[in-house]
Amino acid sequence: MTRADLNDLIARLAGQLVALRTRFEAQTQSLARSCTTGRPDSGGIDAGQLDAHRLDRKQLPSYELAFAGAELLAAETVLRESSPTSTDLAVRLALTFAATACQSITARLDQVALDLDGDTPMEPARRAELRAIYTLVLSGAALDETGRLINESRDEIGAVALSEDLVIAQGQFRRLATEVLAPVASRIHREDLLVPEPILQQFREMGVFGLSIPERYGGSAPDDRDDNLMMIAVTEALSEASLAAGGSLITRPEILSRALLSGGTAAQKEHWLPRIAAGEPPCAIAITEPDFGSDAGGLQLRGTRTEGGWLLNGAKTWCTFAGRAGLLMVVTRTAADRSLGHRGLSVLLVEKPAFDGHAFEFRQSGASGQSGNSAHSGGRLTGKAIATIGYRGMHSFDLTFENFFVPDANVIGGEAGLGRGFYFTMTGMVGGRLQTAARACGVMRAALLTALRYAADRKVFNAPLGDYSLTRAKLAHMAARFAACRQLTYAVGQQVDAGGGRMEASLIKLFACRSAEWLTREALQIHGGMGYAEETAVSRYFVDARVLSIFDGAEETLAIKVVARSLFEQALKSAAAAA
Amino acid sequence: MTRADLNDLIARLAGQLVALRTRFEAQTQSLARSCTTGRPDSGGIDAGQLDAHRLDRKQLPSYELAFAGAELLAAETVLRESSPTSTDLAVRLALTFAATACQSITARLDQVALDLDGDTPMEPARRAELRAIYTLVLSGAALDETGRLINESRDEIGAVALSEDLVIAQGQFRRLATEVLAPVASRIHREDLLVPEPILQQFREMGVFGLSIPERYGGSAPDDRDDNLMMIAVTEALSEASLAAGGSLITRPEILSRALLSGGTAAQKEHWLPRIAAGEPPCAIAITEPDFGSDAGGLQLRGTRTEGGWLLNGAKTWCTFAGRAGLLMVVTRTAADRSLGHRGLSVLLVEKPAFDGHAFEFRQSGASGQSGNSAHSGGRLTGKAIATIGYRGMHSFDLTFENFFVPDANVIGGEAGLGRGFYFTMTGMVGGRLQTAARACGVMRAALLTALRYAADRKVFNAPLGDYSLTRAKLAHMAARFAACRQLTYAVGQQVDAGGGRMEASLIKLFACRSAEWLTREALQIHGGMGYAEETAVSRYFVDARVLSIFDGAEETLAIKVVARSLFEQALKSAAAAA
Repeated sequence: MTRADLNDLIARLAGQLVALRTRFEAQTQSLARSCTTGRPDSGGIDAGQLDAHRLDRKQLPSYELAFAGAELLAAETVLRESSPTSTDLAVRLALTFAATACQSITARLDQVALDLDGDTPMEPARRAELRAIYTLVLSGAALDETGRLINESRDEIGAVALSEDLVIAQGQFRRLATEVLAPVASRIHREDLLVPEPILQQFREMGVFGLSIPERYGGSAPDDRDDNLMMIAVTEALSEASLAAGGSLITRPEILSRALLSGGTAAQKEHWLPRIAAGEPPCAIAITEPDFGSDAGGLQLRGTRTEGGWLLNGAKTWCTFAGRAGLLMVVTRTAADRSLGHRGLSVLLVEKPAFDGHAFEFRQSGASGQSGNSAHSGGRLTGKAIATIGYRGMHSFDLTFENFFVPDANVIGGEAGLGRGFYFTMTGMVGGRLQTAARACGVMRAALLTALRYAADRKVFNAPLGDYSLTRAKLAHMAARFAACRQLTYAVGQQVDAGGGRMEASLIKLFACRSAEWLTREALQIHGGMGYAEETAVSRYFVDARVLSIFDGAEETLAIKVVARSLFEQALKSAAAAA
Repeated sequence: MTRADLNDLIARLAGQLVALRTRFEAQTQSLARSCTTGRPDSGGIDAGQLDAHRLDRKQLPSYELAFAGAELLAAETVLRESSPTSTDLAVRLALTFAATACQSITARLDQVALDLDGDTPMEPARRAELRAIYTLVLSGAALDETGRLINESRDEIGAVALSEDLVIAQGQFRRLATEVLAPVASRIHREDLLVPEPILQQFREMGVFGLSIPERYGGSAPDDRDDNLMMIAVTEALSEASLAAGGSLITRPEILSRALLSGGTAAQKEHWLPRIAAGEPPCAIAITEPDFGSDAGGLQLRGTRTEGGWLLNGAKTWCTFAGRAGLLMVVTRTAADRSLGHRGLSVLLVEKPAFDGHAFEFRQSGASGQSGNSAHSGGRLTGKAIATIGYRGMHSFDLTFENFFVPDANVIGGEAGLGRGFYFTMTGMVGGRLQTAARACGVMRAALLTALRYAADRKVFNAPLGDYSLTRAKLAHMAARFAACRQLTYAVGQQVDAGGGRMEASLIKLFACRSAEWLTREALQIHGGMGYAEETAVSRYFVDARVLSIFDGAEETLAIKVVARSLFEQALKSAAAAA
C-alpha cells in the first residue's frame, strides 16, 4: 500500500469510529435512563436519579460499555495522532489497532444491546465498508506485511512526540533501568527480595520520588502546573526492567504527595513533601482492609481520640512496601458515627522504622520520635508479607494496628481534614491510575521487545520464527496494541495536566492493564517452552502483568462503579440540559 | 423460560450451527485449494497437492479455522448431549456455551474470509435470528438467571453420563485427590518439590499407571478394546488437586505404553508393560531437543551402533520427571542419513536409577544392570531441572547423553522398529492429547469450584459477590465453558475408543487448554487481590494452566500443522471423490 492508500484508510476508519461513537452515546443514554428511578421512557430531566439497585442489574452491559469506551478512545487517539511525519509502520500499526478495536467495540456494543430496547442493527453498506477495511488491514496477508516491517524496523514502536526534556529523561531512565535494575530484576523476583538499598539510593539521586512534587517542595514538577508526562515517561522506563522494583516505587509517593498537596496544611506540605521527594523516608499507602477492598464506605480501621492525637486499632492489607517504608498513609475511620460511610474517613500519617524482611513488629515506646508522650507507649504495629505469584520487590503486607498512637500533627489537613480522607485519597487516585497505565506500558514494552528478539533469533523448521506469517500477525497485533496503549497514556497525561482527564485516567487504566495481560500471554507463547521457564524474563512479565487488573482499582469496580457510573451521570446531565 | 422454551432454543441454535458448519466446510475447501500447487480455481482433483510454501502464507486463516473447528465441534456436542433428562441448568449451560461459540466461530470465520475470495455475507434474516437467540441466552438478564441457578445448584456441572464403573472410579479418585494429594499440593508447588514417594505409592496401589495398559499386561484396560474414558476420568480427578503431582503423572505411561503396544516386540511388551502399569519404574518421555521442539524431522540426538546396542550422544530438553523416572523413552536418530528426517528416528528405552533432586548425574559402569558389557562403561547421563512458573511436582529436565549405552533389546520393535520411532510416538500422542484435555478439565473444575465458593462467601458492599449480576454472568460463562470442554473430552474419548477421533483429539486439546487459561484467569479475578496470593489455590491453577497451550503440541503447531493440514487433506480428498 502507498502512503496515499494508508491515509485513505485512516480517513475511512475514522468515519467508522464516528458511527461507533454515535452508537456508543445512544446506548449510554439508553442504559443510563434504564438505571434511573424515573420512568424509563420519560427521558431527560424527568428520568430521575441513578438507582443503585437498577445499576446493579445492569452490571454486565455497564462493564462492556466501559471497555468499549476505553477502546473507542484509544482508537480515536491513534488515528488522530497519525500525521504526515509518522512512518509507514506507525500508520500501519494505528490502522491495525483501530480496525481491531472496531471489531471489539462492535462486539461489545452488540452485547450491550442485548439488554436494551431499540438498538439499530448496522446497515449493509457499513458492513461492506468494514469488511473492505478489515481485508486491507487485518487479513493474514496484510498483517504479514506489517509484521515484516516491524521485524525490519529499528524505530521506536508506539513513538510519542515528546519535549526535549522528556526525551532526555526517558533516555536517562532507560539507561538506569537497563544498566542498574535489569541485571538484578530476575533475582529479586525469583528470590522474593526487597529492592536493594543501593538501587533505592540511585533512584533517590535521580529524583524518582519527586516527580509529582512541585519544585518549591523539593520535587521536580513545575510549581505552576502538573507534569504527568515526566512521571509517565520515568514510570514506563523503570517498569520495563521491573514492575515492582522499578516503576511501582513511584506509585506510593504519587498518591501520598497528591493527597498532601490537595489536603495538607502548609506545615505538613513543608515538612513532608521534601522528604517524600527525596525518598527518605520511603512511603507506603494503607487503604484496603481484609473485608473491604473496593468499598471505601465500609472501611473499619478505627482512630479514636486520645490526648494529643489518635489511637489506631484494626487491620489493613495489601499495603505494598510497608516494611521498608518509614511513612504510611493510613486511611482511618475517625468518626464514631459509622453511618457517615466514606465521609467518616481521614488520612493519618504513621511514622515507623524501616524493616527489611517479610515480617516486622514495631512497638511504640515513650522515647519514640513520634510520640513524646509516655502515656502512649505500648502501641504496636505488626506486618506480615503476603507471598504473591509476581509483583515482587516491595513485599505487600497484612498490617495490624493495636493502640498505635498518631499525633494530631499527622492528620492530613489537621482538624479541618477530618472526614475528608476519602477525597484526599481520590485526588491521588487519578494520578495513580495514569501511573498504573504507564506501568502496564513498561511491562508491555519489555515483553514485546523480547518477543521480537526471540522471534528473530529462534529457528523453527529451518527459518526464523519471525519469518512465519502467523508469528508476524501476532507481532503486528501486539505492537499495535502496545502503541495504542502508550499513545493513549501520554494523551491522557496531557489531559490531566490540563485539569481534565479524570474518567480517561480510569479508561486507560482499564485498557492498558488488560492489554498487558493479553500481550504478555502472547509474548510468552512466542517463546514456547522457554517462555514458561523462570530464567526467561517473559515468564516474569506474564505473572507481573496479572496483578495490573486487580490492584489500584479492580477492573470490575473501576468499569462499573467509576467509568459506567460517570458516563451515565454525564449522559443524564446532558439529556437534562438538552431538554 | 420454561423447559419448552429452552428446548426450542436448542433447536434454533442447532440450526445456526448447521449454517456455520456449512460455511466452515466451504471455507476449508476454498482455503485448501488456495494452498495447493495447482491452479486455485481448478478445484477438485486437479487442484494438486498441498504446497508447504503456500500453506505457510495462509497460517493465520489456518489457525483461526482450526480454533473455529474446535468450537464448532464443542458446540455441536453440547447441544446434542442435551436430553430430556438434563436439568434446566445443564440445558442453560449448553445454550450459553453454544451461543457464545456461535459468536466466536462467526468472528473467526469472518477473519478467515479476509484471506479468501467469495465468502458470502450473512443474510439479514439469520442476523436477526441470532440476535434474538443471543438476547434470550446471553443478555445480562439471561446470564444473571443462569448464574443464580448455578449458585443454588448442588448438581455436578458438566455432568457426563458415565458407566457405573466409571462413576465408582471417579468417586474413588476424587477422594484420593481430596484427601491425599490436595493437602500437599500447595507445598509441592511453592517449594518446587518432587511428588512425595508415599503419594506415588498410593497411586501405584490404585492402578493409576496402568489405565491404558490391557489387563493381560497387568494394567486395567480391557484386553479387547481401548478404554480412554477411565483414563480421562482418573486424570481429571487427580488434576483437580494438582496438575503436575496428579493427573500429569499419567501422561508418561500413557504415551510410552501406547508406543510399546503399537510397536514393541512380544518380549518387550511382556517385560515392560506390567512394570509400567505397576508404576515401578516410573517413566518419562524424551522427545524435544533444545533446537527442535515441534519439528521431529530435525531431531538430532544420535544413536550410533556399537557391540550389542547403541551409544547415545546429544541433548534433550523438557523431559518431565526424568530425575525420578527409572525408564526414559528416548526418541533417537538411529539412521546416519539425515535426509531421512523423521523416518530416521527410533525409540530407545533408557534405564537409569531414580534421583530425587533438581539435578543428577548417572555414570554407567560395567556392573550396571543395563549393560553387562564392561566395554560400555563410561556412558554418562546428566540432568538439570528447569525452574518453571508452574506445573511443579515432577521437575522438567535438560538432559545430556554422552556415549550412553542402550542395549539392542531396548529398541522398541527391535531391528524392525528402527526408523519407525516417529510413528510409535505418534500413536501415543493421540491418547496424550486426549489426556491433556482431561488435565485441563481437572484444573478448570478446581478453579470453577473455588470461584463459586469464594463468590458465595465473600461479601462486597454488604452482599455476597455471587449475588451481583456481573459475577453471575462471569460464573455462567465459566461453567458453560467448563461443561463444554468436559463433555467434548469424554465424547472424543469414546470416538478414540471406537478407533477414530484422531483429529478430534487435537481439537479438544487446543480448545480445553485455551479454555483453562481463560477460565483460571477469570477465577483468579473473582478472588480479587487474594487470587494473586500464593496461599490461595487459584493462583496455582492460573500459573499451572499456562503450560497447557505450550506442551504436548504447542497450540500454533497443533492448529496449523496437525488440524488445519488434515482438514485441508480431507477437503481435497472429498472434493476429488466428488469430481
